[in-house]
Amino acid sequence: MSARAGIVVTGTEVLTGVIRDANGPWVAERLLELGLDVAHTTVCGDRPHDMEAQLRFMARQGVDLVVTTGGLGPTADDKTVEVVAAFAGRPLELDESLLERILAIVRPLRERWPDLSEQELVESARKQALVPRGARVIEPAGTAPGFVVPPLEEGGGPTVVVMPGPPRELRQMWPVAVASEEFAHATRNRTRYESQTLRLYGTAESEIAETLRIAEREVPGFGDVEITTCLRRGELEVAARWEPGAAEAWRRTCELIERRHGRRLFARDGERVDDQVAELLRGRRIALAESCTGGLLAARLTDRPGASEYVTGGAVVYSDRAKTELLGVDPALIERHGAVSPEVADAMADGALARFGADVAVAITGVAGPGGGTDAKPVGYVCFCAKRADGAALARDLQLPGDRAEVRDRSTTVAMHLLRRLLDGDRARP
Amino acid sequence: MSARAGIVVTGTEVLTGVIRDANGPWVAERLLELGLDVAHTTVCGDRPHDMEAQLRFMARQGVDLVVTTGGLGPTADDKTVEVVAAFAGRPLELDESLLERILAIVRPLRERWPDLSEQELVESARKQALVPRGARVIEPAGTAPGFVVPPLEEGGGPTVVVMPGPPRELRQMWPVAVASEEFAHATRNRTRYESQTLRLYGTAESEIAETLRIAEREVPGFGDVEITTCLRRGELEVAARWEPGAAEAWRRTCELIERRHGRRLFARDGERVDDQVAELLRGRRIALAESCTGGLLAARLTDRPGASEYVTGGAVVYSDRAKTELLGVDPALIERHGAVSPEVADAMADGALARFGADVAVAITGVAGPGGGTDAKPVGYVCFCAKRADGAALARDLQLPGDRAEVRDRSTTVAMHLLRRLLDGDRARP
Repeated sequence: MSARAGIVVTGTEVLTGVIRDANGPWVAERLLELGLDVAHTTVCGDRPHDMEAQLRFMARQGVDLVVTTGGLGPTADDKTVEVVAAFAGRPLELDESLLERILAIVRPLRERWPDLSEQELVESARKQALVPRGARVIEPAGTAPGFVVPPLEEGGGPTVVVMPGPPRELRQMWPVAVASEEFAHATRNRTRYESQTLRLYGTAESEIAETLRIAEREVPGFGDVEITTCLRRGELEVAARWEPGAAEAWRRTCELIERRHGRRLFARDGERVDDQVAELLRGRRIALAESCTGGLLAARLTDRPGASEYVTGGAVVYSDRAKTELLGVDPALIERHGAVSPEVADAMADGALARFGADVAVAITGVAGPGGGTDAKPVGYVCFCAKRADGAALARDLQLPGDRAEVRDRSTTVAMHLLRRLLDGDRARP
Repeated sequence: MSARAGIVVTGTEVLTGVIRDANGPWVAERLLELGLDVAHTTVCGDRPHDMEAQLRFMARQGVDLVVTTGGLGPTADDKTVEVVAAFAGRPLELDESLLERILAIVRPLRERWPDLSEQELVESARKQALVPRGARVIEPAGTAPGFVVPPLEEGGGPTVVVMPGPPRELRQMWPVAVASEEFAHATRNRTRYESQTLRLYGTAESEIAETLRIAEREVPGFGDVEITTCLRRGELEVAARWEPGAAEAWRRTCELIERRHGRRLFARDGERVDDQVAELLRGRRIALAESCTGGLLAARLTDRPGASEYVTGGAVVYSDRAKTELLGVDPALIERHGAVSPEVADAMADGALARFGADVAVAITGVAGPGGGTDAKPVGYVCFCAKRADGAALARDLQLPGDRAEVRDRSTTVAMHLLRRLLDGDRARP
């Protein structure tokens, strides 16, 4: 059996929903890549009793490794190290040389925080320089060190990896923790899994469910492949993980999916439509013309490093005046068909091509809601047009489900797929 | 003692980090509003054994209510109802009338999913119409019903509220579950907490930590106020929750915070800078001019319903050509100072004011990275200009920490605060 791991995310602000946890999912992905089996993630507040209970739960579930995130700060509610030390039976000891290293980091920060006294500074640093006896110290990326805390004796419980809450610090310190002897020892029984992620656009979850039920009947060894399906931003993701012996079962399952949904399968190797579009845009210049998405499509395209090589710019044209002024859309056209119409989407795309001197343009205009819907054009009605400078174009108008945020987000996905098909030269309607 | 609750989020895709959970935080906020004490959130995959273990953990921790999300779909890996039924000792029974109601929902969807056979459709619906004996059925918002499952006998364990995974469905069904007799009974011991959230901009977490240490020494009853602080998108949030008896302690703590950080305290009632800016923009028209943020600021402003009343539009000007073509920035100015410079930010704001006929404009140009940095203008260097049509302006140039995504996101926060101060008529540099 593969080594099992658990993740304990601490922080009242995470538990109470004030902030969205970015660390749990990130650590889970890293552990899976290492071939560990992630069994449980738990979230607790700043109450030591609850955190202890979760660590004991993890131990009872037989996990080999627990990763904790958060609770390493200088404030009184940051109790992770104290709780982990007690859990592992390793008393806290002040590490004088670590204290010096922390002070060397925080002293220069004092200029930025003039309200902070020297005494408070040292007090904070002393708290962060307390080390569970015998634990491996991971040098701070911010001001707080992390730790790898093995059990007192072999088989005496999980090894606990203590990581800070700020994602940037955690991500910098993680490889150091993974490279430690203690980590390697705790995870020596890990398995190498193979994995693959398929992505489909325009397929329902129940359609893939039916395909998997057929696979269950027809593919020998299907049960040895772990498959999860999920709808994400308007796409369907099929993620599979298997041990080497089940490779043939997965290959046959893949074939079945391809046979039944081939046309809608757009990525076989975990690629995102964003990756494909970026690749297809190489050597081209794109411009965006957005109304209801208000810049989200431009933001999505420019999210990638190096986007400046192909994104020339975009116009967010919320008002009719902006549509006319920036993109040269004829006011009479807006008057005749309405600002949300295939005709205006088409004119917006033309305007973006001309105004930005681009090779390709995408235009979106729709009713994101909650207000502004009519019987003919209800909330969720969105018109798209993707056009190349050579005149080739693809257009769609759709009724999208969900609230304002979902309609806006889903619209960017529809636009990405329209763009992918236009650039790929495939002009059929899906 | 107040009633305690736990949340069990199910789904391998959440546990493995493939998708970010939106339900746990949302449910936690709702439970807290109801005056329940959220003790634990746990995440498990689609393995029944792990989910059972988490439910037993919750029971052992003495929670009165457990909310589960996800795992109600038609696929074989959706096992929540089965596990909860076994946990509560209530066998599953087919509810024929519920089956009819589900079929009435899913039959019309068949047109959209032509690959789905009638037999598979009925099989899926039958699975979703299985009810733990004696449980309260919550009618589906999508296709899956939810349940409120009380313990077999009083004191025999927590009541389990079974909710679907899709956030829109959960949010629609939640109030129905809360209104049920079974929910009311399970949470009859809940406390009414008071709560308040302060937000500061330009204050470090260690500065507020010092203030809270002073409060600990000087404010009687300080220990009865639960306070959490967290950095979020470049702002510092101080969230407090207290039972009625501790109101005076919190009032005095607030005064202390105000005395020490008043200038930087911008919200006392949980308001976001986005709310304040939206309010300040009433009766005005804003235009955006964005380079490195690539539309994120426009997207943030138009995220709010009704934004079309004050957002006229924006220009995403990634290339120099777009800066000149769309916003009339003089190419010689770009040549002289570089595209990332206070001068170009200023010219971009002017261009946006003129081109969109706006009352106020914000311009952002910077080096988001990872490439494109120089010694003089490293990655994270960003220039901002907020300008009113009457000529009043505020400008900043800053070195922001973090990676590309953080620099871009943080830039929108800086811009929002600049805008707030400009519209508020406060022209001092923070």
